[in-house]
Amino acid sequence: MTIDTDALRNYFVRLQTDLVAALTTLEGPMGGAFRVDPWEKDPGASLAGHGRTAIIEGGRVFERGGVAFSSVNGAALPPAATARRPELAGRAFEAMGVSLVLHPENPYCPTAHMNVRALLARKEGAEPVWWFGGGMDLTPYYPFVDDIRHFHATCRDALRPFGDDVYQRYKQWCDEYFFLRHRNEPRGVGGVFFDDLDEGGFDRCFALTRAIGDAFATAYPPIVERRQHMPFGERERDFQAYRRGRYVEFNLVWDRGTLFGLQSGGRSESILMSLPPVVKWRYDWQPAPGTPEAAIYDLLAPRDWA
Amino acid sequence: MTIDTDALRNYFVRLQTDLVAALTTLEGPMGGAFRVDPWEKDPGASLAGHGRTAIIEGGRVFERGGVAFSSVNGAALPPAATARRPELAGRAFEAMGVSLVLHPENPYCPTAHMNVRALLARKEGAEPVWWFGGGMDLTPYYPFVDDIRHFHATCRDALRPFGDDVYQRYKQWCDEYFFLRHRNEPRGVGGVFFDDLDEGGFDRCFALTRAIGDAFATAYPPIVERRQHMPFGERERDFQAYRRGRYVEFNLVWDRGTLFGLQSGGRSESILMSLPPVVKWRYDWQPAPGTPEAAIYDLLAPRDWA
Repeated sequence: MTIDTDALRNYFVRLQTDLVAALTTLEGPMGGAFRVDPWEKDPGASLAGHGRTAIIEGGRVFERGGVAFSSVNGAALPPAATARRPELAGRAFEAMGVSLVLHPENPYCPTAHMNVRALLARKEGAEPVWWFGGGMDLTPYYPFVDDIRHFHATCRDALRPFGDDVYQRYKQWCDEYFFLRHRNEPRGVGGVFFDDLDEGGFDRCFALTRAIGDAFATAYPPIVERRQHMPFGERERDFQAYRRGRYVEFNLVWDRGTLFGLQSGGRSESILMSLPPVVKWRYDWQPAPGTPEAAIYDLLAPRDWA
Repeated sequence: MTIDTDALRNYFVRLQTDLVAALTTLEGPMGGAFRVDPWEKDPGASLAGHGRTAIIEGGRVFERGGVAFSSVNGAALPPAATARRPELAGRAFEAMGVSLVLHPENPYCPTAHMNVRALLARKEGAEPVWWFGGGMDLTPYYPFVDDIRHFHATCRDALRPFGDDVYQRYKQWCDEYFFLRHRNEPRGVGGVFFDDLDEGGFDRCFALTRAIGDAFATAYPPIVERRQHMPFGERERDFQAYRRGRYVEFNLVWDRGTLFGLQSGGRSESILMSLPPVVKWRYDWQPAPGTPEAAIYDLLAPRDWA
C-alpha cells in the first residue's frame, strides 16, 4: 500500500491556514494578528523536521495562543512510541499534524485545545505502518453549561458518520487522558481524544481525523462570540490565572506529547506555546462554597454532555 | 548497625524551625509570617507519612516560599529509587528531610532552593541500607557577581571539613542536575548537589548533610539583605515572571524529586510549594543585547565561582 503523504500534508497545511483565518476573524478588525514563524530543525538532529508556528500574543480576544503545523522525522521510532507495538522498534518514522491551544483574556471564555496528527513508520521491504491521533477539549474557568453542551454536541455530530459509539468512546478516552492524577482532578470538561487509530483503513481514519480538525471552527468560536464581551474584573482574572496553573501542571507532568517532544529534542518554543501567558500558584487554595469559582469544580466531573 | 532515626528526625525538625525563624526575621516586624500546616497521609495510602509545611505568601520580602519537613514511608521502594541499586527492590523504606524554596518579590533578590534528606531501606534479617542527599542552589534574575560568589563560597566552606574535592564535585553535580535539557540552559547559577551519599560512614554523611542544611542561613539571607531595598518597576517584575517560567519547566519536567512525589501519590500542595506565585510565558522571547536582562544569561554558563 502507498501512503499519500502529500494528501496528509496538504490537509494539515490547509487546516492551519483556515484556523488562523477563522481566529483572526474572531479578533476582529481592531484585534490582534497571528505572527507566522517558520522553522527548520537540522536534518542531523535526533529529530529533524520543519514547521510553521502561528502565534498570537496580546490580542483583543486571545491573550496567548498558537496554531502549529509541524512535520518531523527520525531514523528510528523512540521507545516511548513503540511500547505498545514492539514490532515497530527501530523503524524510520514521519509524524505530522496541527496543534492548537488558545488562552483568551476574558476569564468567561474557556481555554481550548485541538490536535490532529498522523504517524507513518517505514521499513525497507515491509508495508508502511500508519496511525492517526487527535481530539479537542475545553477548559472553562466559569460554568456555562450551554457552552459545554455545544462543544460536546459538535464533537458528537462530527464523529457520527464513523459509527454510533465513536463519540462515546473518544469522549471517555478524553476524560481519562486529560486528568491530573496528582490532584485527582480533570483538566477541564473534556471533549474527544483518540490515538493509535487505524481501524477501518487509511481512508476512513484520515476522514475521521479531518472531521475533528474541521469541526473545531464550529465547536469553539461560537462560545467565544457569546462570552467575549462579558465584563470581568480582578477577581475573575485572578481565578483564571490560578486555574491556568492546572493547565501547566497537566501539560508538563502528564501530557505524553509534550514530554515526548521536550525529551526528544523537539522545538521547545513550539511545544510550549500551549502554556498560558500569566499563571499564578497559591498554597492549598479553595474557592468559597457557593461562589461561581466553586461552581466550575462541580462541572469537571465527567458526565454525558452531548 | 542501628540507625538513630530520632537523631535524623530531631535535626530535620530543628532545621525547619531555625529556617522559619531566620526567614521571619528577614521579613522584619512589619513583614509577613509563615503559616504552618501539619499534614498526615493515611497509613493505607501508597505513600504514608506526615509533615509540616511552613508557607509564606504575600510577605514583605517573600512573595511565596515554603520550608517543608516531611517524613514518608512505604512498604516497597519504588522502581525509580532502585534503578541504580536493584538489590534493594522491594525493601520497605523511610524517607525524611527538609525542602525549602523562596521566591522573593523584588526581582533583584534571587530565588533560592535548599534540600536535605535521608533515606533508609530495611529488610528483616538484613542490615539497614541508608543514604543521604541534598544541596542548595541559586537562581538570580539580575546579575550580581558578588552574590553568586558569596553563595558558592559559603557552600565551599561548609564542605571543606569533608574533603578537598567535595565542593568541586558537588558543584559540578549541581550544574549537571539543574539543567533544562529542552532549552540547553542551566536553571540558575548552581550551588551544590549530592545524592546516594554513603561514603565514609553514617556519621560523616549525616554531618555533611547537616553542614549543608546549616549553611543556608549564611549563604542566602545576606544576599536578600543586600538587594531587598533596590527599587524596581514593571520591567523587572515582568522579566522575573518570564524567567520564573524556566523554574516551573525544570521542576515539572526534569526534577526527579518532584516527579517521583507527584507520580507516587505524595502531597501535591507541599511538593508544588516550589512553584512561583506569578509566572509568564511569551513566545520565543529574547532580551535585547546589552540590557541587564541579557546579562544574566551570560552568568548562567557554569564557571568557578568560589
